[in-house]
Amino acid sequence: MSHSLLNRPAKVAIVGGTHGNELTGIYTLKHWQKSNRAANYPDFNIELVQANQAAADKNKRYLDQDLNRCFKQTDLNNPTLKGREQQLAKQLNAQLGPKGDSRVDFIIDLHTSTANMQINIVLIKMDKFHLLLAAYLKSVLPNVVVTSESELMEDHHFLCSIADKGMVIEVGPTPQGSLDPGCFAKTNAALESSLEFLHHYQNNSLPDLGKQLEVMSYFSKLYFPQDNDGEINAMIHPNLLGKDYSKITPGTPLFQDFSGKDILYSGEACHIAFVNEAAYYDQKIAMNLCQPRCYCLTSFLPLCKK
Amino acid sequence: MSHSLLNRPAKVAIVGGTHGNELTGIYTLKHWQKSNRAANYPDFNIELVQANQAAADKNKRYLDQDLNRCFKQTDLNNPTLKGREQQLAKQLNAQLGPKGDSRVDFIIDLHTSTANMQINIVLIKMDKFHLLLAAYLKSVLPNVVVTSESELMEDHHFLCSIADKGMVIEVGPTPQGSLDPGCFAKTNAALESSLEFLHHYQNNSLPDLGKQLEVMSYFSKLYFPQDNDGEINAMIHPNLLGKDYSKITPGTPLFQDFSGKDILYSGEACHIAFVNEAAYYDQKIAMNLCQPRCYCLTSFLPLCKK
Repeated sequence: MSHSLLNRPAKVAIVGGTHGNELTGIYTLKHWQKSNRAANYPDFNIELVQANQAAADKNKRYLDQDLNRCFKQTDLNNPTLKGREQQLAKQLNAQLGPKGDSRVDFIIDLHTSTANMQINIVLIKMDKFHLLLAAYLKSVLPNVVVTSESELMEDHHFLCSIADKGMVIEVGPTPQGSLDPGCFAKTNAALESSLEFLHHYQNNSLPDLGKQLEVMSYFSKLYFPQDNDGEINAMIHPNLLGKDYSKITPGTPLFQDFSGKDILYSGEACHIAFVNEAAYYDQKIAMNLCQPRCYCLTSFLPLCKK
Repeated sequence: MSHSLLNRPAKVAIVGGTHGNELTGIYTLKHWQKSNRAANYPDFNIELVQANQAAADKNKRYLDQDLNRCFKQTDLNNPTLKGREQQLAKQLNAQLGPKGDSRVDFIIDLHTSTANMQINIVLIKMDKFHLLLAAYLKSVLPNVVVTSESELMEDHHFLCSIADKGMVIEVGPTPQGSLDPGCFAKTNAALESSLEFLHHYQNNSLPDLGKQLEVMSYFSKLYFPQDNDGEINAMIHPNLLGKDYSKITPGTPLFQDFSGKDILYSGEACHIAFVNEAAYYDQKIAMNLCQPRCYCLTSFLPLCKK
């Protein structure tokens, strides 16, 4: 069975601080280390990995480039890429991978968002393991939304793509560089439930998870309106702030300029996510666009496009 | 009259980006520049000052040290202080000051907070001008809270201390490095109302502002609990998040450790502000402590200590 985890004990890497200013993951790892929480999971060999200590020391998302965009196979193999995160990606790939034939079976990468992403389970592969994982988390936790990055690229650039099985747990809203007990609790609940899932998956003891799973699948992004000098000249519309996963249609007020004038949406009807994410201002990205897709939990194929 | 602004037109500096990752002030200045909003105030000579462009370019609060702590007279006079913000403070003092005999009459410095500070009018002098200014803003805008830094130091370290008259407008909650239309609107309303006040003050046309003004006066701060290595090992208690200006008394749950255990307050009853401010994590400050004080709007003296 190609999708089972053959290794026993399964090797699991819990990663925090891939973005150095997302403290929830960083402090979750410190807490797991100090309180030896991995001992609660005797089924697994758990490794705790602080991914970008240099960025964390400076309370920055990254030093030279976003680490969580550095794991394409072609980039890992490219000896000319010498940025600090590009080199760090190669180190992490050597430590946990190598990608395509990884020592580690399953990577759980802990992130936060300044947007109202709730408990966002980000998948980059839509196969039996990952769909059941997401369905399990939706069944045991409130406020879980599953998103898919799988349609954006073949050779994925996320850290969790090093292993055959991987996920991002992304909780928000919370500002960068601070800790929030609600965000911490949600992150830890999703992490613990993911390990529970792995136990059930390996032991064929999963509960019934229903017939299908709805996933928000990203297909594009929207940029902030800009003036001739490339300066942002409008803000997210107040109606959309905090409204991640809601639907926009032609005519929806999307932005408000600094004089208070509304700017309307004119694209195809879709849903929005990462609305006003602070980490995306460097690229002037205002929000990501997605569409709900249903996957069959028997065939593990897409069922419909809404 | 020592408290009137003798210059006509009064010279007003509106400052943004004193902290380079607080975008609301930075974009307010851009907006005022592009739309020539200063023309709406023919009474005044308005200068728009982007204070720390180098930090803004890196989306950081500061490069070497917090610029808004660099304006003590003793530090401005100290030739051995060579950090980038220490040098920038001397440049700004030469441009707007010099402190103690400043070219500019009134400095309005625009800030944001990740804490729920609402429209926080921060004063560093409690005299007729500043008390009437704060009382006027409270009378014309909702959700204004006046705080005083005046009891913390004689020779103040804020940028706005360069001029004889100065204030900070600090709006929150909003994450660093992003724009929020509500925060932008509140900031601009407070800024415009401050200029209206100045017009009324110079023309003796102020409305009746009542008999007294309540001000939250800072006297101390609380640090996060830390382990033997100096690492933060607890978060703000969920009950207190977003509860800036609320009262704590002995026994109030103050922190929650990573295992969920409450840590109780054991100091004197007081009020809290800047609760979980992300910018203060570098110093491990969890919140500031303050007490309400009433000032008489006739004598301009403190009335009582609650």
